[in-house]
Amino acid sequence: MSLLVVGTMAFDAIETPFGKTDKIIGGAATYIGLAASYFYKNINMVSVVGGDFPQESMDMLKKHGLKLDGVQIKQDQKSFFWSGRYHTDMNSRDTLATELNVLADFDPIVPESCREVDFLMLGNLMPAVQQKVIAQLTKRPKLIVLDTMNFWMDTAHEDLVKTIAQVDVLTINDGEARQLSGEYSLVKAAQKILEMGPKVLIIKKGEHGALLFNSEQVFFAPALPLEDVFDPTGAGDSFAGGFIGFLAETKDISFENMKRAIIFGSAMASFTVEKFGVERLIGLTQDQVDERVQEFIDLVQFDISLV
Amino acid sequence: MSLLVVGTMAFDAIETPFGKTDKIIGGAATYIGLAASYFYKNINMVSVVGGDFPQESMDMLKKHGLKLDGVQIKQDQKSFFWSGRYHTDMNSRDTLATELNVLADFDPIVPESCREVDFLMLGNLMPAVQQKVIAQLTKRPKLIVLDTMNFWMDTAHEDLVKTIAQVDVLTINDGEARQLSGEYSLVKAAQKILEMGPKVLIIKKGEHGALLFNSEQVFFAPALPLEDVFDPTGAGDSFAGGFIGFLAETKDISFENMKRAIIFGSAMASFTVEKFGVERLIGLTQDQVDERVQEFIDLVQFDISLV
Repeated sequence: MSLLVVGTMAFDAIETPFGKTDKIIGGAATYIGLAASYFYKNINMVSVVGGDFPQESMDMLKKHGLKLDGVQIKQDQKSFFWSGRYHTDMNSRDTLATELNVLADFDPIVPESCREVDFLMLGNLMPAVQQKVIAQLTKRPKLIVLDTMNFWMDTAHEDLVKTIAQVDVLTINDGEARQLSGEYSLVKAAQKILEMGPKVLIIKKGEHGALLFNSEQVFFAPALPLEDVFDPTGAGDSFAGGFIGFLAETKDISFENMKRAIIFGSAMASFTVEKFGVERLIGLTQDQVDERVQEFIDLVQFDISLV
Repeated sequence: MSLLVVGTMAFDAIETPFGKTDKIIGGAATYIGLAASYFYKNINMVSVVGGDFPQESMDMLKKHGLKLDGVQIKQDQKSFFWSGRYHTDMNSRDTLATELNVLADFDPIVPESCREVDFLMLGNLMPAVQQKVIAQLTKRPKLIVLDTMNFWMDTAHEDLVKTIAQVDVLTINDGEARQLSGEYSLVKAAQKILEMGPKVLIIKKGEHGALLFNSEQVFFAPALPLEDVFDPTGAGDSFAGGFIGFLAETKDISFENMKRAIIFGSAMASFTVEKFGVERLIGLTQDQVDERVQEFIDLVQFDISLV
């Protein structure tokens, strides 16, 4: 059994109403891998970085148990860079800069030892690149989770639809679910999207929580009400990481277990937004994770017995 | 034991993306009373209508067990009228017309028999009018719940703050909580508002559910994901009605029981938005209410045991 995480490892520069950062490490795979590492120990990363990606960050990821054999290092190139500024509501942001760099011609190579993984997490990337990963696997994983975004709906719609048809779980936000389905109602949007192939759809609503749909059931996980959301960057990826990490560890992909998994995912996202970048995701203790999950239990559990 | 509901009984004319209505009955007290009637049977209404308010609507309210002795009928005047148009997101609306009519000089009179009620629900009204009701009571109710809105924060701030200080539970929406507290974070907003007097604050977030705060705890109830929100008018009042009706029936005002109460309130709101006006709130069966509450249980309950 193992988990393969595919996605960007990158630099971000972030401005929020609380402050701004210089270049700090980010990227979907970084957040996913770190969040998943609190639940599962056999995680392989597939990504690409430039020669500028800090060795100490690589060491930090390894310290979290992440295997980096599938991370290509292009010594003479620069890592992917994104810069953005969040508005007061923290739900909307302006992109200030996007430099693809090594990502421009990223050709993912899945290490031999990972071609029969049971769990595959495809972080947000060009759909054609996500497909290249699936094509390299010699056995169909037990579960493929795909994250994507509106940018690919605008620029690579056909490829995206083809990729979505190949996966088990799709994670997108509410605006993207509306765009992809052409339906305003999220319930109707979910029905349409589930007809496109995935057995399960997760609609992320940021501070308003997340919805988990299959063709017959729906489950809702709230976001934790926080005093301050300091930096939302990576929240969705941390959510996905907690989700797939918990599923890989428990080896149970039933809807009931996915309910638990999105609570763990939400807990990891709630850590991420408390500080800039991945800072809060580094070196958490099991007690801290458990306490956070207990807060989610207290937040939504009630006791009604209908006669 | 009894429950006193104070608020408007009125006419509304509503436009939504799904259609429009002529004048139909509405008003905070109407929605609150109807929703509460599914949980509790000794409900007294205090309101005012004009001679144009239909006898058949009065009869329908009586059939739901609501006592109308405290409803003043001004035969030669017209009922309060509001007209509005909702946008596609159903969270924002334009007011097209407001005719105060009988509401302009509403002097609420609490019937002798209701001056020692245990539960008082003050629907949205001018704060000075809400205070006049409290002043007529000869015994402090076990629980006073107050609903209000941004209009009074803008036009009667001092009166409102005085009224809020006299109640146990305040219900407002997220934008109003931010306005009243000057805090963007709802957690910080709640802390500030609870310092103004109420022991409990409910922040209504429409399709994103509701938060229940006391000084130490927080609970979240989702809204039910619906295929279509047909008409959101009265959703907040139906929520408040289910909430107070359940508390009055169970006579338990602990935080634990308030968690249950906001689930029942959310269930009643989910009915209201399925049709125009009060239509869906009329003549529901116990089975229908129970089934709806079960949907909420299925929506959020999960089973995580932390060791």
